[in-house]
Amino acid sequence: MNFPELPALAEPALAARVQHAIDHKTKPLGALGRLEALALQLALIQGVERPQLADPQLVVFAADHGLSRRGVSAFPREVTPQMVANMLAGGAAVSVLARQQGLALTIADCGVDAPLAAGAADLRIAAGTADASVGPAMTVEQAERALHNGMALVERLPGNALLLGEMGIGNTSSASLLMQRLTGLPLADCVGRGTGLDDAGVARKLAVLGEALAVNAGAQAPLALAAALGGFEIVTMAGSVIAAAAGRRVVVVDGFITTAAVVLAEALRPGVLAACVFSHRSAEGPHARWLQHLGVRALLDLDLRLGEGSGAALAWPLLTAACAVLAEMASFESAGVSNRD
Amino acid sequence: MNFPELPALAEPALAARVQHAIDHKTKPLGALGRLEALALQLALIQGVERPQLADPQLVVFAADHGLSRRGVSAFPREVTPQMVANMLAGGAAVSVLARQQGLALTIADCGVDAPLAAGAADLRIAAGTADASVGPAMTVEQAERALHNGMALVERLPGNALLLGEMGIGNTSSASLLMQRLTGLPLADCVGRGTGLDDAGVARKLAVLGEALAVNAGAQAPLALAAALGGFEIVTMAGSVIAAAAGRRVVVVDGFITTAAVVLAEALRPGVLAACVFSHRSAEGPHARWLQHLGVRALLDLDLRLGEGSGAALAWPLLTAACAVLAEMASFESAGVSNRD
Repeated sequence: MNFPELPALAEPALAARVQHAIDHKTKPLGALGRLEALALQLALIQGVERPQLADPQLVVFAADHGLSRRGVSAFPREVTPQMVANMLAGGAAVSVLARQQGLALTIADCGVDAPLAAGAADLRIAAGTADASVGPAMTVEQAERALHNGMALVERLPGNALLLGEMGIGNTSSASLLMQRLTGLPLADCVGRGTGLDDAGVARKLAVLGEALAVNAGAQAPLALAAALGGFEIVTMAGSVIAAAAGRRVVVVDGFITTAAVVLAEALRPGVLAACVFSHRSAEGPHARWLQHLGVRALLDLDLRLGEGSGAALAWPLLTAACAVLAEMASFESAGVSNRD
Repeated sequence: MNFPELPALAEPALAARVQHAIDHKTKPLGALGRLEALALQLALIQGVERPQLADPQLVVFAADHGLSRRGVSAFPREVTPQMVANMLAGGAAVSVLARQQGLALTIADCGVDAPLAAGAADLRIAAGTADASVGPAMTVEQAERALHNGMALVERLPGNALLLGEMGIGNTSSASLLMQRLTGLPLADCVGRGTGLDDAGVARKLAVLGEALAVNAGAQAPLALAAALGGFEIVTMAGSVIAAAAGRRVVVVDGFITTAAVVLAEALRPGVLAACVFSHRSAEGPHARWLQHLGVRALLDLDLRLGEGSGAALAWPLLTAACAVLAEMASFESAGVSNRD
């Protein structure tokens, strides 16, 4: 399958110009810390000296999982469509936070096990994936359709920023499986409590996921891996990430599941991670480990473990602040402020 | 000197009701992490189940320091009035961030060594403090006037939130001295690089601050300590913090210097810390140590070390988000979502 080419997302001459501008703002050198690094990254993603963010789009990718019938989650499977309805009605955390931050909210049904909800975008592949503990979660053809759906969705959306959210009972299991295969870390390092499993629940989840890894051990290429272990929402999201990076959109990663999607996207189209801003470090155990493995430090560390895009929405004002600092702060010269000796 | 009484800022019955509401929102228990604790704190400060934030006021308390003539800062003393002018002209980081977040910005001149700038609030005590390395930085009478000024300023301002900012070349020195005396930690644990001292500069700063501690060792009561070691901006700020807490306003603490002000305020009027939200952990070395000593964890950790109120402004959207979650998120019952077994 063909993916779009990526533009240069880290042009050295531009980076030098932007860093020079940052260093001459009226503040001690480096005093805005990681906000400065963020401003530089946003400039490089957009390929301009003064990045501007417009019409940000938060997309919640939702789907059900065959694995959720195996007792891998603290919540029952029917919660996926119930939460989709709650998001559409405006009562979910992501609804509240998107409204508060001025983020357009799209709920993309990538394969929920219930009829399409009014107001949701129809990106449905099937009513939930197959049980990955006995075979591939989906066919390669379904994975390709999901990737296409994700790319096409982004191309239809306005603006230059994509904030990632997700909903799907059982989807930390899919993310854990992808993490194990994409990092090579032991499975136990890749599995957490999800929405709140106790120790016995975690043990059960580990056993089921071990079966899924064994039965899908033959899946090697990224596309085969996506089909074997991915949820429809994760694979669709990976497609959206590729299209966003290709179009110089900023991708704001949420927690553990969206991290799985962007790392899967990176495997499919190397380079897309340069367009990704990691919004927060989740309290879902393996997320910190994965960020460390990627060598990235997320912006927020608030013990969030909700998903939905809640962390991406909460971090959004830091991105707009970084742009404002670049565009609006005076330089020592322009403000007539003495620099240090 | 008399300070206003504080209301009950941690009423247990209210805390239980708010926690119950948080726990029945449509999310796994505790999944919004520290945003939930923040929502609870805001409710307790306001004494209501659904806190609302209105007309937030960011005040930059500015003043000069006698110590800045002793080579304790990487920047020259004239930068204080230059940065005040830059803030008033809209080019400083705090100007940009306050504008972006919809925060009213007041620059309070508490004793800058230059004529009052047009547009600044006149809370001037004198043109900079005396040199604390040879005697008290100010008289007790001046400290009392500064505290009164700070309280009166808050009483004039609208709204129910006070965000703390500061500007004053040399004011990390004053904060370090106060930290040493208020925590009892060794001076070396209380001193950092400020706006960018090199190792030799830090050694010089340590030596000068050692002199200041020795010559002011007799100052024991909080008010005497404030006079001996405080900057005019820090003492004025402490007064504002007391008035804000007394009026159930949320106080948003910025970095190292504003932490000195709120801890000084706590010494003067125990209980005010309950009204304080710590916005970020500064990269100014001793700040992390002080937060640890206080047993608090700040919201952001972005390696900021600018002051001005920049961290407070950056954290502000988390406070409005916490209120929105309490007010607008659906409960499992109202949304018809299945809770876990």
